Amino acid sequence: MTERISSVDVLDVRFPTSRHRDGSDAMNPFPDYSAAYIVLRTTAGAEGHGLVFTVGRGTEIEVAAVRSLAAMLIGQPVDDLVADPGALARRLVGDSQIRWLGPEKGVVHMAAGGLVNAVWDLAARRAGRPLWKLLAGLTPEELVAQIDFRYLRDALTEQDALELLRSAAAGRGERERRLLGEGYPAYTTTPGWLGYDDDKLARLCREAVTAGYELIKLKVGGNLADDVRRMAIARDSVGPGIRIAVDANQIWGVPDAIRWMRELSHFDPYWIEEPTSPDDVLGHAAVRRAVAPVKVATGEHVHNAVMFKQLLQAGAVDVVQIDACRVGGVNENLAILLLAARFGVPVCPHAGGVGLCELVQHLAMFDYLAVSGTTDDRYIEYVDHLHEHFVDPVRIRRGRYLAPTAPGMSAQIVPASLAAFRFPDGPEWATAAAA
Amino acid sequence: MTERISSVDVLDVRFPTSRHRDGSDAMNPFPDYSAAYIVLRTTAGAEGHGLVFTVGRGTEIEVAAVRSLAAMLIGQPVDDLVADPGALARRLVGDSQIRWLGPEKGVVHMAAGGLVNAVWDLAARRAGRPLWKLLAGLTPEELVAQIDFRYLRDALTEQDALELLRSAAAGRGERERRLLGEGYPAYTTTPGWLGYDDDKLARLCREAVTAGYELIKLKVGGNLADDVRRMAIARDSVGPGIRIAVDANQIWGVPDAIRWMRELSHFDPYWIEEPTSPDDVLGHAAVRRAVAPVKVATGEHVHNAVMFKQLLQAGAVDVVQIDACRVGGVNENLAILLLAARFGVPVCPHAGGVGLCELVQHLAMFDYLAVSGTTDDRYIEYVDHLHEHFVDPVRIRRGRYLAPTAPGMSAQIVPASLAAFRFPDGPEWATAAAA
Repeated sequence: MTERISSVDVLDVRFPTSRHRDGSDAMNPFPDYSAAYIVLRTTAGAEGHGLVFTVGRGTEIEVAAVRSLAAMLIGQPVDDLVADPGALARRLVGDSQIRWLGPEKGVVHMAAGGLVNAVWDLAARRAGRPLWKLLAGLTPEELVAQIDFRYLRDALTEQDALELLRSAAAGRGERERRLLGEGYPAYTTTPGWLGYDDDKLARLCREAVTAGYELIKLKVGGNLADDVRRMAIARDSVGPGIRIAVDANQIWGVPDAIRWMRELSHFDPYWIEEPTSPDDVLGHAAVRRAVAPVKVATGEHVHNAVMFKQLLQAGAVDVVQIDACRVGGVNENLAILLLAARFGVPVCPHAGGVGLCELVQHLAMFDYLAVSGTTDDRYIEYVDHLHEHFVDPVRIRRGRYLAPTAPGMSAQIVPASLAAFRFPDGPEWATAAAA
Repeated sequence: MTERISSVDVLDVRFPTSRHRDGSDAMNPFPDYSAAYIVLRTTAGAEGHGLVFTVGRGTEIEVAAVRSLAAMLIGQPVDDLVADPGALARRLVGDSQIRWLGPEKGVVHMAAGGLVNAVWDLAARRAGRPLWKLLAGLTPEELVAQIDFRYLRDALTEQDALELLRSAAAGRGERERRLLGEGYPAYTTTPGWLGYDDDKLARLCREAVTAGYELIKLKVGGNLADDVRRMAIARDSVGPGIRIAVDANQIWGVPDAIRWMRELSHFDPYWIEEPTSPDDVLGHAAVRRAVAPVKVATGEHVHNAVMFKQLLQAGAVDVVQIDACRVGGVNENLAILLLAARFGVPVCPHAGGVGLCELVQHLAMFDYLAVSGTTDDRYIEYVDHLHEHFVDPVRIRRGRYLAPTAPGMSAQIVPASLAAFRFPDGPEWATAAAA
């Protein structure tokens, strides 16, 4: 009998991270890291897990969106789905009525991405491989067939993509051996949350260097005098040889960003992340021209490949920060990795939150093996939060992500955590409400 | 006792327009025009009505989003809300947790816009004025205070906006008399839906000219040979003196758009609307350079003022098409009208759907009185669908919108229609499901 998708469960799971101001930044002083969590089940008892990362309030909206789109999966033959997740991605993103609510952005696009990622998790589990290895095993033709090029061809054609993938074939075996032996570089945001005091900042900076990180990141944008003081503490704590990125989380307009970064430039910041609205391609280009040689980075809120295409076309970014859960899933991230490679811009994935590290490591490792072929100036963000809730958590050694070896996309949350943090009725929330 | 918001009702209302292919275009062959419909009620028994236009499936997602955001209105003092809807707009758009789901785009942004518009409807009803007249009666300082300039100042500062508004004061009395006497120019999309046959197309084109329209619009992008034939029929039916716009509804990439428009250029199209992804600022600029003197228009899917800013900065559009329900409500549309005026680009609002004509006419008429000061090359889209469901429907005479005179934003749907078309349990849907 044909194996089919029999159910799609969608859960609202929230972690009360705001109680200790973990994750606090200029635009979001009190985040509760959360997820619309997805479990696909098949008639043969197989599972695919996915999630859409959220920040607390509004997770119920994302859950509603995933539930609406999930109807398109019920009853689908699993062999077809896992052989061509791109066909599903096109159906989910292109639904002629639902696309008014995007198109290709925001709540509905993230819902599509969550479901597409869950199908890739199912595909990798069936193949008995971690996702990075499944993707790296596809031919250039198979990979290109997974991408929707409709709006990309003025910057990247199918032929361009094939040539990039073919030229990355050389040396792949050696790169895989190095990846398995040494891991992939990480950077840490753990020291720099805006809500931490100076002593905690200095201590965490020193610990990061001791732990082997070569790049750390500080949140900025609350108050200029505070930022100057904190940046001086951080530089003093890590010394001149460690890169310090700063992240404004969109707090500024273009003129503010330029003014503020001139003040911080004395401390040799490596990149300024999200200096302004993630939609402002031309604004990022203007900031980049003004603050060079400080690099400009963005991406965690960049809603689709069309926006990344323009950031690259306009010379607006030095660093592309893909996010596993913002765009339409693995398929659209393949397009973004290829666009970045076409323009010669390094990809340093956004992570943190809930499960973002677990998911996105697969994409960065695939990029190293099959697209860019290098880890030079590339780092996956690492934040030491909430990994204990995952069945296959990331493993960090000496400032590097070790390659996951379990089948799938590492998205599965342990059942006890799902039960404890389910919103609003899990005991962690019900108890807080009663207190 | 202080009057407060006592309840916010949100209804899922859908009209089965796909049964006759009204509204059919290249990306959306079978739309069911729908709305997440909003009713604010106050402790004194006053009401404010608003809506978020949708296209059928997925309306339940928009309803969920409006319900989540509506919590921020319950209990708010009405005097404060109507005195400063901009403060509410900032709270709704800027919520530090929910903004991850946008930011400022898609489902959550449209939900914020629907609620903000409902507050403006309430404000105008209390003032006993149609919204266009309420807005035109505000001082330049009051209008500027309603706008969030955070991401706009590289193109439009508070001072720029004040100067634009002050310079438009001259002649306003005369313009209001002309508006009340003659109305505001309309164009019609009624003839050109892609699902209509050639005879219906020709007949509706001739009827549009007889009815006084000077601009009509055809949907294109399904099949080039069909488009050439239909464009020839339309040009033959209306003669050389009537403008014919064409609308591709985002079906093309940049190279396709240029190739296709070269073929259609023989029939003197006035503008090409949505030639490609609404997110592709640089793509629109490339299309515009290639197809001139045919104009480029977009806006109904342009998700916020930051995107409009860039379309103008990049010289990507000849026509700005604001939409009453896409962005964060009246306040963000004020910013977009001022940006368009600053760059000297005419605004031709998108309308049609459910209630879009009713709502957006107020913004165009305000623009004429208080911002651009002209109706030259400006038209509000008009589609003859679903107006019978509105308490204060638009009135068209000789191809022009007559200025509404009833207090409010004309957003109220008659109760019998709400009951009949409520989804899925209204009799119009329950009967269809049973059949």
